[in-house]
Amino acid sequence: MVGFDMASNATKASLPSAKNSANSILNLVQGDPTVFEPYWRDQGDKCTLVISGDDLMSYYSDYGNICWFLQPQLAEAIRNIHRDVGNAVVNGRHIVIGTGSTQLFQAALYALSSPAGPEPVTVVSSAPYYSRYPEEIEFLSSRLYKWGGDANTFDKDGPYIEVVNSPNNPDGGSRHAVVNRRGGRLIHDFAYYWPHYAPITAAADHDIMLFTLSKCTGHAGSRIGWAIVKDIEVAKKMIKFVEFNSLGVCKDSQLRTAKILETISNEFSNLGSTKTGNFFEYGQRLMAERWRKLREVIKRSKVFSLPKYPKEYCNFFGEFMESHPAFAWLQSNGSMDAEILLRTHKMMVKGGKCFGVDPKYARVSVVGREEDFNLFLERLSAII
Amino acid sequence: MVGFDMASNATKASLPSAKNSANSILNLVQGDPTVFEPYWRDQGDKCTLVISGDDLMSYYSDYGNICWFLQPQLAEAIRNIHRDVGNAVVNGRHIVIGTGSTQLFQAALYALSSPAGPEPVTVVSSAPYYSRYPEEIEFLSSRLYKWGGDANTFDKDGPYIEVVNSPNNPDGGSRHAVVNRRGGRLIHDFAYYWPHYAPITAAADHDIMLFTLSKCTGHAGSRIGWAIVKDIEVAKKMIKFVEFNSLGVCKDSQLRTAKILETISNEFSNLGSTKTGNFFEYGQRLMAERWRKLREVIKRSKVFSLPKYPKEYCNFFGEFMESHPAFAWLQSNGSMDAEILLRTHKMMVKGGKCFGVDPKYARVSVVGREEDFNLFLERLSAII
Repeated sequence: MVGFDMASNATKASLPSAKNSANSILNLVQGDPTVFEPYWRDQGDKCTLVISGDDLMSYYSDYGNICWFLQPQLAEAIRNIHRDVGNAVVNGRHIVIGTGSTQLFQAALYALSSPAGPEPVTVVSSAPYYSRYPEEIEFLSSRLYKWGGDANTFDKDGPYIEVVNSPNNPDGGSRHAVVNRRGGRLIHDFAYYWPHYAPITAAADHDIMLFTLSKCTGHAGSRIGWAIVKDIEVAKKMIKFVEFNSLGVCKDSQLRTAKILETISNEFSNLGSTKTGNFFEYGQRLMAERWRKLREVIKRSKVFSLPKYPKEYCNFFGEFMESHPAFAWLQSNGSMDAEILLRTHKMMVKGGKCFGVDPKYARVSVVGREEDFNLFLERLSAII
Repeated sequence: MVGFDMASNATKASLPSAKNSANSILNLVQGDPTVFEPYWRDQGDKCTLVISGDDLMSYYSDYGNICWFLQPQLAEAIRNIHRDVGNAVVNGRHIVIGTGSTQLFQAALYALSSPAGPEPVTVVSSAPYYSRYPEEIEFLSSRLYKWGGDANTFDKDGPYIEVVNSPNNPDGGSRHAVVNRRGGRLIHDFAYYWPHYAPITAAADHDIMLFTLSKCTGHAGSRIGWAIVKDIEVAKKMIKFVEFNSLGVCKDSQLRTAKILETISNEFSNLGSTKTGNFFEYGQRLMAERWRKLREVIKRSKVFSLPKYPKEYCNFFGEFMESHPAFAWLQSNGSMDAEILLRTHKMMVKGGKCFGVDPKYARVSVVGREEDFNLFLERLSAII
């Protein structure tokens, strides 16, 4: 299993953005999306949540919904934000809520595998793949499913599950299913399919699509994810998983999520078709500016390079745009171990091996706080 | 696997306390602890939570704690409430937070089992046992652990885990470990070890002790549970489980939980040693009154009986007291199927078979809203 420890990284490295001195190690491992904090600070009371002592006490949220633990106002807010952004089809689809998309990924595995199967169904994803997939698939040694590695080299017959992560974590690329055999089931992880990271080229319409508030608005601490699911039986099995696993999803965070998403949707209503001054425009400008600065540093580098992303037409902004991913996927040109190289310059990142590829690659978060990002550029410049 | 479906129960039966007419089915299946709502309503603004749009956005809560996703103010509130109530030793112990104690039960199984073991470790609990234990143990077909049934009949050698649920769900009895063999590990589920349900006879001091806000204050919708853990390595593995499973625990609900627990602790500080007028006294009076009414109905019954609970000295209230459990454990005297019998009188409950015992037993929630409890008594009286 690919090992990685948030806790040990947090304690070994400096606290992200907490008084980084010249000697402190800069933690760029996690994609902790604190980049958007200033935006939400500026919103003032518009999205302040107030909960009284006797609110939301029951286990139940909605007796009329198969997802009995989903707050109706959140279901509505989720449908609205996807209609506003145009990144996913929601009409006639089921919404399943989860404790982050992390829980829903496991719920989807459970829903797509069969307890009666003779052997575990193999789960694959194209390398470089999100390093948590193998961990989440393997940590309980389930007989239902097992990790099968890189989808590009998968050649077994029979049932399998392919996870399609697009835009892809770690390398930011646009992805499609690659196995395309009989007996295959798909999970689309769309954590980063929002206009501030990538052009919205179409309203996605797949069997199971996972989204998370963490990467959409930056509210990672609320641990709210959602799945858009076509088949009601699959949705029911995912709901069952969440019931077994945690007896529902915290309602306080659901209500807060509804409020935050409604704030964005209300901006659209007020702004009309111009779409200026809204959260995604703010986010897009901010990410584009970070990537401009980063590419400037890399242009002068003899050590590192970055992927190029094609300009594609974004239906949301109505223009051709590049991707500005949440992570920089650095490649060391001399085939040096990128993680070790960056570590010697006091930057803690995640090396290529965690993602199933060569150690010459490393993933670096570019969604941290401003001062951390600037320190990253400064230290990166010094390697060149 | 013992099957039970919160969703289908919710939709088939009437909504608890929502306009129960003479013909509607009364749902008494879940222990949805809405009984305490009026108390929290009366607290007014004292425990109202206000969260701004830019609060709590990071994944991290506390870099200095092995449980990096635990809000420090919640850790403090948890330690204080246990010191106030005297139901568990917290000094020198580790607090692990979870999405309800449901998630932490699974985290404890993960922590106590070994991936390198030749076969799954067997998990047992004395019958009648909480019906969700077998479900939560088996739903992912893990190779790490398996359900072994009633602890009273367990006679295998080698490693095992015994779950001790005290006061016990469903029957309200006080419990201790019964297997007591070499190689055994214990999980103590203390969801109901609070003064409104049972006398606090001692500060419990076991390896892993699970608590949940749902049953303590009635805030089930917040999905907050905590474990008090002696061994740091066990705590670390439980934390790892929560990281793999849901990348932490929603912070909004953590903050709310801290506020609610602090409200109770402040009552103690203000009230001094009299302990009158605080939440637990309110809860104890309310539960005692419900049980008085229920026992009155049962006294006239030729069909049903209830367990007797011994009077024990409660250190918290400073007097001898009986238990007043969250569930009534009804036994039909004529060995009739209690669930079916109650069902014909429009009461939906959970039958003995779900808990590993005879169908002449049934578990009935007595922590629902006032109107539901009264309707339950009314319909129960009609059977007699």
